[in-house]
Amino acid sequence: VLTLHPLPPWDEALTSRDVAKLVGVSQATVSRVLADSPLVSAQTRKRVKEVLEQVGYQPNAAARTMRSQRSGTVGVVVESLTNPFYPELLRALGTELQRCELQMILWDADESPGVNAAVQAIEQRLVDGLLFTTATESSEPFRRALQRGAPLVLVNRTVDGCRCDQVGGDNERRATSIARYFAQHGRDSIAMVGGPAEAETARQRMRGFRAGASEAGLSLPEDHIVDSDFSHDGGQRAMQRILSVTPTTNAVFCANDVIALGALDAIRTSGRIVPDDVWVVGYDDIAMASWAAFDLTTARQPLAKMARSAVDMLRARIDTPNVPFAYHQFWNELIVRDSTGHAPFDDHEGVTKT
Amino acid sequence: VLTLHPLPPWDEALTSRDVAKLVGVSQATVSRVLADSPLVSAQTRKRVKEVLEQVGYQPNAAARTMRSQRSGTVGVVVESLTNPFYPELLRALGTELQRCELQMILWDADESPGVNAAVQAIEQRLVDGLLFTTATESSEPFRRALQRGAPLVLVNRTVDGCRCDQVGGDNERRATSIARYFAQHGRDSIAMVGGPAEAETARQRMRGFRAGASEAGLSLPEDHIVDSDFSHDGGQRAMQRILSVTPTTNAVFCANDVIALGALDAIRTSGRIVPDDVWVVGYDDIAMASWAAFDLTTARQPLAKMARSAVDMLRARIDTPNVPFAYHQFWNELIVRDSTGHAPFDDHEGVTKT
Repeated sequence: VLTLHPLPPWDEALTSRDVAKLVGVSQATVSRVLADSPLVSAQTRKRVKEVLEQVGYQPNAAARTMRSQRSGTVGVVVESLTNPFYPELLRALGTELQRCELQMILWDADESPGVNAAVQAIEQRLVDGLLFTTATESSEPFRRALQRGAPLVLVNRTVDGCRCDQVGGDNERRATSIARYFAQHGRDSIAMVGGPAEAETARQRMRGFRAGASEAGLSLPEDHIVDSDFSHDGGQRAMQRILSVTPTTNAVFCANDVIALGALDAIRTSGRIVPDDVWVVGYDDIAMASWAAFDLTTARQPLAKMARSAVDMLRARIDTPNVPFAYHQFWNELIVRDSTGHAPFDDHEGVTKT
Repeated sequence: VLTLHPLPPWDEALTSRDVAKLVGVSQATVSRVLADSPLVSAQTRKRVKEVLEQVGYQPNAAARTMRSQRSGTVGVVVESLTNPFYPELLRALGTELQRCELQMILWDADESPGVNAAVQAIEQRLVDGLLFTTATESSEPFRRALQRGAPLVLVNRTVDGCRCDQVGGDNERRATSIARYFAQHGRDSIAMVGGPAEAETARQRMRGFRAGASEAGLSLPEDHIVDSDFSHDGGQRAMQRILSVTPTTNAVFCANDVIALGALDAIRTSGRIVPDDVWVVGYDDIAMASWAAFDLTTARQPLAKMARSAVDMLRARIDTPNVPFAYHQFWNELIVRDSTGHAPFDDHEGVTKT
C-alpha cells in the first residue's frame, strides 16, 4: 500500500497532513492518534500508527511547543567551563535533565553575549526555565531573569537572601571543621587562599574557616589570607605570596580544588614537602584531586543529589509558579588523602578515608 | 497613553496581538514592523516600536521557528565531558555559535538517552544541525543522522572515508614527527600508550608514531604499545605495564594529555625521574599540561580555528544541503616543555618553546 521511501530527503519533512493523505483519513484523526485520544477506532489507530512508523514521522518540535506552551528545554548558565568542577556539575545536571526528557541549552557566561542570550532565550520562551550555576548578586542577566519572574534555580553558587529556589553545599560548616582539623593535629601556622569576593561559595568558605580558626584558638592574621580567582595560576601566585610573608606556614585551606592544585605546585616548587612541611586542603573533590600527582584532601560536593534537587525544583517551579521558595543545603563530606598525611578527621560527622 | 506595567507576570506573555490592540493597529501591521517591512508609514512604525519597547515584547521562539523553518539552535554531541579537552573544545564551539547568534543544545553521549535525544532532536527539527565531537563509525546515532541526510559536521574526531563535512587535526603527521624527535635526542627505548581503537584520532596518532619510529630506525615491539581508554587511570595502568615489561623505557608518546598525566604519575611513583629517565609527550595541550606538576610537552590543537571552521561548515550545510563535502585539516604545533627536558624540536615545521 505504501510507495513512499521510509527515508525521504532531509528537506522534505513529513507533516501529519502527509500522513493523513497516505492513510486516507483527516489530519484531525492523525492528530488524535498522536495525542493518544480515545476518539479514534482501534482499527484506524492501528493503520495510522503503521504509516507513522513506516515513514518515520516525527512531531515538529516548534509546533508541539506552540500547542503545549512548553519547549521541553532548560537553559544552563555556567561561568567557568575550564574549571573541571563545572563539567562535572554539568554532567550531573545533564543526566537529570535527560531522565526528565528535557534538553539542555548551555551558555558560557564568561562570554558576555552568552549571558544576554540566556535572558533573551527565557523571554522568548525558547527555554522553560534557567539553572544558574555561577550567579552573583551583581550578575545583570540573573537579576533581569529574577525581576521578570522567570522560573529559575541557583545550584552550587547561591545568593544570600535571594527570593528564588536555591541548592547549595554546607560550605560554611565544612570550612569551620577544616580549621578544627588543622588544630587537632597541631598545625598552628595556618593560611587560606580565598576565591573571588563576589562568589557566595567563596565567602561562605572564608567565613567558616575564620570562625573555625577562632574557635580552635588558631591565629589567622590578615596577611595569611590571600584572595585569588578560582584558577590554578591564581592559587599558585597566592600561595607564593603566603610563603614569602610567612615561611613557617604549615597548613593551608584553599577555597576550591583548582586553587589547591596551584597551591600544591607553589609549595613543591619552593622546595617544601607536602604533607610533612605543609598540609593542603581543597574544596569540591574534582576527579583530579585523587590523582597521584596531587592526592588532595578535599570536601566533596554530592553533585548527583544536588543536580536532582535542582532539576526537581525547577520543574516544580515551571508547573506551579507560586509555590514558596526553597533552599536545599547538602552535606559536603571531607575526603582525607595524602596532602594531609591521611591524618584522621574526627568531626563526629562522617568521614571517608581513601 | 500606556497603562500596562512594563513587566507583566511571567505567565502573561505578550503577543503581537496584544501590542496591536494597545497601539490601535492590525496585528499584520505589528508583524510588518517586526519584520522591518517598508510597507508601514514612518509614523506608525515609530508608535508600534515605542509600545513594543515599553511592554518589553519579545518574539516567541517557537512561532519564529514555525515561520522561518529554522530553530536557530545547533546540537553538540560530546562523549567525555570529564576529559578536560572537551570543555575546552565546547567553549571554543560556544564562542563561535554565539558569534553567529546560534544557541547550543548539549548532549553528553556517555549517557545513552542523550545519544538518542540528539537524533530525535534533529528529526523533530528542534535543532538545525549537529556537531559531533566524538563520533565513531559504530556510533548508532551518528549513523542514523548521516543516513537521514541531516546537516552535521564532525569536529576533532573524524571518521575515515565518511561522506560528511569534517574538521580535524594532522594527528598522523604530528605523531610521526614525535618519534623522529625521540630519535634525534637519542631516546632509543620508546613506547606508546594508545587510545581506544574505535577513535579515529587514536588510530591516526598510532599509525603516525609507528611510521615515524620505523623511518627513524627505532625499534617499537608490540609489547611496547599498550592501548588505554582516554583517561588518567587508564594511562597510569598502561604505563605501569610498559615499565614492568621494559624497565629501560626512556621515552613514551601518549595518545592524549589525560593519558600522559596518568603516565607521568606511574613513572614518578615507580621512582623514575621525568625527563632524566623517561621522556613523556602528550596530545591536545589542555590547560593543565602547562601546570608545574606536569609541565608536559604536547601537540596543541588550534581549537578556536577548528571551532570556527566547523560552525562555518555547518551553517553552509544547513543553508545549502547539496554543496560537496569538505575535510579541513589543521596543523597541530608541538609545545616543548620540561617532560622532554626542553630539548629543541627540529622539525622545520614550526615549534614553540615555553
